[in-house]
Amino acid sequence: MNFAIVRYILGWVLEFEAAFLLLPSAVGLIYRESRVTFWFAVTAALCLLTGLLLKCRKPERKDVYTREGFATVALSWMVMSAFGALPFFFTREIPHYIDALFETVSGFTTTGASILPVVESMSRACLFWRSFTHWIGGMGVFVFIMAILPMIGGGTTINLMRAESTGPAVGKLVPRVRDTAKILYEIYIGLTLIGTVTLCICGLNLFDALTTIFGTVGTGGFGTYNDSVMSFSPLVQNVITVFMILSGINYTAYFCLLSGRLKDAFAIEEVRWYLGIIFGSVAVITWNIHRMYPTVWDSLRHSFFQVSSIMTSTGFASTDFDLWPELSKTILLMLMLIGACAGSTGGGIKVARFIILMKAIRKEIATMIHPRMVKKIKMDGHTLAHETLRAVNVFISVYFVLLFASILIVSLDGFGFTTNFTAVLATLNNIGPGLDAVGPTRNFAAFSGLSKGVLIFDMLAGRLELFPLLILIWPSCWKKY
Amino acid sequence: MNFAIVRYILGWVLEFEAAFLLLPSAVGLIYRESRVTFWFAVTAALCLLTGLLLKCRKPERKDVYTREGFATVALSWMVMSAFGALPFFFTREIPHYIDALFETVSGFTTTGASILPVVESMSRACLFWRSFTHWIGGMGVFVFIMAILPMIGGGTTINLMRAESTGPAVGKLVPRVRDTAKILYEIYIGLTLIGTVTLCICGLNLFDALTTIFGTVGTGGFGTYNDSVMSFSPLVQNVITVFMILSGINYTAYFCLLSGRLKDAFAIEEVRWYLGIIFGSVAVITWNIHRMYPTVWDSLRHSFFQVSSIMTSTGFASTDFDLWPELSKTILLMLMLIGACAGSTGGGIKVARFIILMKAIRKEIATMIHPRMVKKIKMDGHTLAHETLRAVNVFISVYFVLLFASILIVSLDGFGFTTNFTAVLATLNNIGPGLDAVGPTRNFAAFSGLSKGVLIFDMLAGRLELFPLLILIWPSCWKKY
Repeated sequence: MNFAIVRYILGWVLEFEAAFLLLPSAVGLIYRESRVTFWFAVTAALCLLTGLLLKCRKPERKDVYTREGFATVALSWMVMSAFGALPFFFTREIPHYIDALFETVSGFTTTGASILPVVESMSRACLFWRSFTHWIGGMGVFVFIMAILPMIGGGTTINLMRAESTGPAVGKLVPRVRDTAKILYEIYIGLTLIGTVTLCICGLNLFDALTTIFGTVGTGGFGTYNDSVMSFSPLVQNVITVFMILSGINYTAYFCLLSGRLKDAFAIEEVRWYLGIIFGSVAVITWNIHRMYPTVWDSLRHSFFQVSSIMTSTGFASTDFDLWPELSKTILLMLMLIGACAGSTGGGIKVARFIILMKAIRKEIATMIHPRMVKKIKMDGHTLAHETLRAVNVFISVYFVLLFASILIVSLDGFGFTTNFTAVLATLNNIGPGLDAVGPTRNFAAFSGLSKGVLIFDMLAGRLELFPLLILIWPSCWKKY
Repeated sequence: MNFAIVRYILGWVLEFEAAFLLLPSAVGLIYRESRVTFWFAVTAALCLLTGLLLKCRKPERKDVYTREGFATVALSWMVMSAFGALPFFFTREIPHYIDALFETVSGFTTTGASILPVVESMSRACLFWRSFTHWIGGMGVFVFIMAILPMIGGGTTINLMRAESTGPAVGKLVPRVRDTAKILYEIYIGLTLIGTVTLCICGLNLFDALTTIFGTVGTGGFGTYNDSVMSFSPLVQNVITVFMILSGINYTAYFCLLSGRLKDAFAIEEVRWYLGIIFGSVAVITWNIHRMYPTVWDSLRHSFFQVSSIMTSTGFASTDFDLWPELSKTILLMLMLIGACAGSTGGGIKVARFIILMKAIRKEIATMIHPRMVKKIKMDGHTLAHETLRAVNVFISVYFVLLFASILIVSLDGFGFTTNFTAVLATLNNIGPGLDAVGPTRNFAAFSGLSKGVLIFDMLAGRLELFPLLILIWPSCWKKY
């Protein structure tokens, strides 16, 4: 491990976090929350100082190989969360540090699971910071840094982006990593701006519009009201639905659209499947819940909202779906597993991985029937690399091992199986609410410190797609060379 | 598909079933249940007739390739179950045919899930048949046929055995398939005899000893009492525990023992892991439940019994483990998933597959850290074939797809998530009881016909390790060539 470069990049990350913290400070100033503003400023100063200390000596070698890339990204997300939790703790708005950490990790990883029973009593600055962490974590802090800074890690910077981006095979949209990062952030900022303006036009004030859109395009799910977005007007809810669906789409599709390649954008298999699954699920759920709401339009609206919210791993709630019939709840559970598109801000196993698995199954059975046939797995017209398939398989194995190991530890707290299963599923897939004791109208506060620790690990592992965190706990990773 | 050979082998299977049915007929005669005996004789006659009809024309080509092997085995198990259910239905001891079919499939697949609220009111002949199906299905009907008949399918008979045996890589113990089948049945019969004698010495009468040992060495779990084996003495329960553990061990280990290769037998990685997992789980559960029972020995006994019963997929209950704390129940759930050793009569994903997955994960992470390292996955000292790993991966994918698809359909009935999840898990892994509404003191009768159909499919898919059933519903499998 090249420790010097890891330390150096961590320094950069903390300096960027210091800059990010200025925004909630500004919000505090506007709303005249001087005490809260003070603590945000203190945290920003702490970040800046620590960052400068870590950066004081330049590393000799600047290579970032896979292991450095993974370890750096995992460590950065931990350090970022550890510092990001301080304002909640300093201001006593979240009295226990482990809870503040849970909330912050939940923010950065765009999970949206909360330990807060009452959100509305929070200061504006804290509420803003809470939602803003979604936006930072959504596209990823390294993608941001790369879009701005010229080359931290020399020509090997792609390994940092690989560790932070989602999906089985992270590619570059354009030959240069930095340009790819720029394009991604341009699309991301574009979606955010259009969303904010639309929500303002639909009647939200700027603060609500901004915090809601941070949670939407980052597929996070923190709301600023106790009832999530249930009290917003149907129109606003529909706008949120549209932006949730848009945020779960593979950003490659937008890139194709922007470069005028309409046909390519609509030909992406993953996007077709993603939309197909959404519409299919909505149809079944609307039929299943139509007796619970006054009109079929209400059922359709709630069904569309909830399906998009769960599948994209956002986690907003327009209604208490824990009261829905078992079939609808089970469909939502399946959508939790599947998740959004690769290369989007959404969580879960990702639609692309499922398509690859299905194709692998089809190939295996076809080979059993016709042993002499040679068949290749194709995706969007290209033959799938053997390594990608192997990586997907190992990913699925690790995913289920982690899922069940976490459920085992969380079960020590004595909650029912549905609670434990969906709590782990909702954190590992970065969704937010689960069912039963962690349903949309309840929260994660009742878990023990140990369980919260496990769920924090799961949120980070889910957001970074398992391997960066696993490498970190692998002894041979820490050998110097 | 070579339809002629499939038809011909199906004929043989039915003739063997006719022979098997003579045993419960004899039991009926002994216990003077003349009406029941009559219907068993009628069913035997039906089997024999249909068998003769199917066998009347000899097939021209006798090759059994993978697809014929898989399709034949899957069809045979279905036909065998369809006929085997008739006595229950004819005698009106199970009034609905779908329930009788559920019970019979549950028997042959050694699941042990029952739709009967009261077992003790059944006739002796039916009770015997119910338990005997476990014994037939445990080692497999084709292994039996192969051990007796000289070559049905020419030199390609191995494909039939492959489709019916458990585990990721089915090998031959000795060069000739027929000898392998013979050795397997000799060990199986040996275990059965020793078990029966031991149980008789411990105080059971011959009928109870036989039916219990059928359910034990076949890892089935049907009991002849309403409370499973709860009312048996602690001594008897401990004997059952020992024989359950023995039945979950890879039969290769017994073969090594019998050929005097003690060292080889104890060196098998899978067996070590299997015993390790059992002892580990027992330790944790004993500690977790020690307050529920008068002495620590009682906790230890119940814990040992339940862990062995669930991990080997037997499904006997010595106590209502649905009342245990959540941690213990979650451990049992994990054991359901893992299952017994490959090459045993037990169900589940199998310990061998888990070891292979863990090794694949370790290799992948090591490769990330040291990209230039070339590492091979080894098992028992041999390098694992690439195809075996691929097959394990596809198996796991299919397994989870089937698991969640089944839960989705079963959820239509409106039971809670724990019930649906464990009902599917308990049938797909051929265990028997689940938790909540399908817990050890309850049964599967309340499910709808559709759900019972899905669970029947899952039991067959679980016993035959997924692919034979999947091939059967694959359109291109049915093309004539």
